[in-house]
Amino acid sequence: MKELLFKNITSVREQAPLVQNITNYVVMNNTANALLAVGASPIMAHAHPEMQSMQAICQALVINIGTLDEYWVESMILAVAAANQNNKPWILDPVGAGATAYRDEVLSELLALKPTAIRGNASEILALAKHNTTATKGVDSTSSSLEAIEAAQFLNKEYGALVVISGAVDIVVSEESVDQLKNGDALMTKITGMGCSATAILAAFIAVIPNKKEAALAATSLMAVAGELAAKSSQGPGSLQMHLLDKLHSITKEEYINTVKILD
Amino acid sequence: MKELLFKNITSVREQAPLVQNITNYVVMNNTANALLAVGASPIMAHAHPEMQSMQAICQALVINIGTLDEYWVESMILAVAAANQNNKPWILDPVGAGATAYRDEVLSELLALKPTAIRGNASEILALAKHNTTATKGVDSTSSSLEAIEAAQFLNKEYGALVVISGAVDIVVSEESVDQLKNGDALMTKITGMGCSATAILAAFIAVIPNKKEAALAATSLMAVAGELAAKSSQGPGSLQMHLLDKLHSITKEEYINTVKILD
Amino acid sequence: MKELLFKNITSVREQAPLVQNITNYVVMNNTANALLAVGASPIMAHAHPEMQSMQAICQALVINIGTLDEYWVESMILAVAAANQNNKPWILDPVGAGATAYRDEVLSELLALKPTAIRGNASEILALAKHNTTATKGVDSTSSSLEAIEAAQFLNKEYGALVVISGAVDIVVSEESVDQLKNGDALMTKITGMGCSATAILAAFIAVIPNKKEAALAATSLMAVAGELAAKSSQGPGSLQMHLLDKLHSITKEEYINTVKILD
Repeated sequence: MKELLFKNITSVREQAPLVQNITNYVVMNNTANALLAVGASPIMAHAHPEMQSMQAICQALVINIGTLDEYWVESMILAVAAANQNNKPWILDPVGAGATAYRDEVLSELLALKPTAIRGNASEILALAKHNTTATKGVDSTSSSLEAIEAAQFLNKEYGALVVISGAVDIVVSEESVDQLKNGDALMTKITGMGCSATAILAAFIAVIPNKKEAALAATSLMAVAGELAAKSSQGPGSLQMHLLDKLHSITKEEYINTVKILD
Repeated sequence: MKELLFKNITSVREQAPLVQNITNYVVMNNTANALLAVGASPIMAHAHPEMQSMQAICQALVINIGTLDEYWVESMILAVAAANQNNKPWILDPVGAGATAYRDEVLSELLALKPTAIRGNASEILALAKHNTTATKGVDSTSSSLEAIEAAQFLNKEYGALVVISGAVDIVVSEESVDQLKNGDALMTKITGMGCSATAILAAFIAVIPNKKEAALAATSLMAVAGELAAKSSQGPGSLQMHLLDKLHSITKEEYINTVKILD
Repeated sequence: MKELLFKNITSVREQAPLVQNITNYVVMNNTANALLAVGASPIMAHAHPEMQSMQAICQALVINIGTLDEYWVESMILAVAAANQNNKPWILDPVGAGATAYRDEVLSELLALKPTAIRGNASEILALAKHNTTATKGVDSTSSSLEAIEAAQFLNKEYGALVVISGAVDIVVSEESVDQLKNGDALMTKITGMGCSATAILAAFIAVIPNKKEAALAATSLMAVAGELAAKSSQGPGSLQMHLLDKLHSITKEEYINTVKILD
């Protein structure tokens, strides 16, 4: 399995997928650099008149609602419609799900357009599922990723989306299974946009790897393993940010395989 | 006093206040990372439909007009109204005050809503005061912070706001006193967004520390002391940026107390 | 020639031109930091009501369409009109030229307003010229800068703009000559916004140096030489980004002259 996952990392480097990002202002720079570091190519564009044609030249789409507003939500809807029409994968990052009614309305609209995959922290995944059922436990910002498995399975069943729950343990919930990854470092929570970068990398992998679960395991573990290795030579969040980009770019097969921890 | 200020730094780390930022595009990433580094939590949001409810879950609000436009100004007004209604502190960063008539009109409107605190460089503080009185000396981009004390006192008296003037000497102007801090490094002027980060950190401290003056002295000195220590191991603005985040995150009581210079 | 170019670098540091940037969200932070590192001062502003008066206080204007939308395009038109009226130089960065019809329409409108200079990669320069003539070879994202010389000459003749084509070889196409620079490092293509920073630095130099060709050679070589030197001490794109800012800020005459390669 570890060999297969590293092969996926190599595939992204070789195929260099073009990923369109409609994402938040805070992380646009990081996200673009993270995509470049893993070998993909980022495009950030949101103008309504070009959503159709821009999506046509990309291999995947990221929708991240972090700093949404009315214009950008319409950009998102237009781009998702184009992606769905062209059978391109699109990945939803429900930043701040549950924080305001406006976010939840927008997320409801986006969910109905059936994202290929969703990545969020436990609170966001719980909020996303709660909005559509009363079966889950409600939003809790201190939730661990394990507490959101049921919510993720609901989202998977209801919308067909693969779900990645980020946390101390990262969890990939697919139709076939629930897989846990146990890498990363607590210092990663002290840099903004780590989750957003994970979502963009997930999009690059899903663009290239036919098996969604294998794409998600490779993308999610790459981010966590690179962060874990980068943290070892970091004195704080500033240097971690730098070392993470270096490591995403240069990680070797040996480093990856010796570090990655997949729980069965 | 130094012991007390470090205690305030510890309080922010422990209480992790949630700070909403309506700030400029240039510094959103830095600002979020600076807040995380001192132990606070950043939220960036500006959509009109969520200003009321977003502000309700935050402990403080930053209004920074750096890249303002008509939509964002309305976001600011909505968020400030919510903050005032909920008795939450809000901090004004009057970026580019005096540069254009449009900025001055917007600042006039914001001032009337009575910010809890204001942080700017000497030119900005002078421009802000001039706009409302003929008593000050006008805008001068080469003004030292000392030249803006009178303007800051005017703003404090007229609007009740604590005022921080950033510069080679940082000055905190409160109802009770005028306090000067003498830390920092000239290289900090070669990185964009240092002032904006100082404003966001000020918001985090005012959210948590009941005494505004003590909050401002702790926040302002933390930024300057961390910058001064970071500059010692930096070869230029790129490495200073990295070391500053590391130092904001990890500064010890000993480092802080041995470095901070409060003038009486 | 090398002595003259370094003299230009010193002139920018001494005169510290104020450069207005209407640029894309992804690179605003980098661009501001790159301008500060070479000794210039950045202003980012786009509100319609202040375009006229903001441009009046700046020495140059950057128009970068990376994340354009309808509001921002109008900001660009307003700012360019003000720059033209005040005889201030303005530099066009045609990000993603040829990618969508919308971009090409906007670029057509901007070209008609006669930019002082244009900087882009080969594909963008080819697309920009193709849009207005059938004489060029069409868009090719794998084009080398050498293949775009004819297109650049067309743009120079038709609109009077100096053109810089970025690539493994950087090319400056002016009325008088075609000059090639052979510095840089392949790792620079793995960081977002390197081209956008090059454009902003070009604007700072054109603001200060009367001879456009000498300004462009100095600006373009400074970016490439600093990148080349920075890459030597970098382990990947994260550290390159940091070292590049350090080097832009501190490069010495000796380092520059011993590294720069101008082909005749």
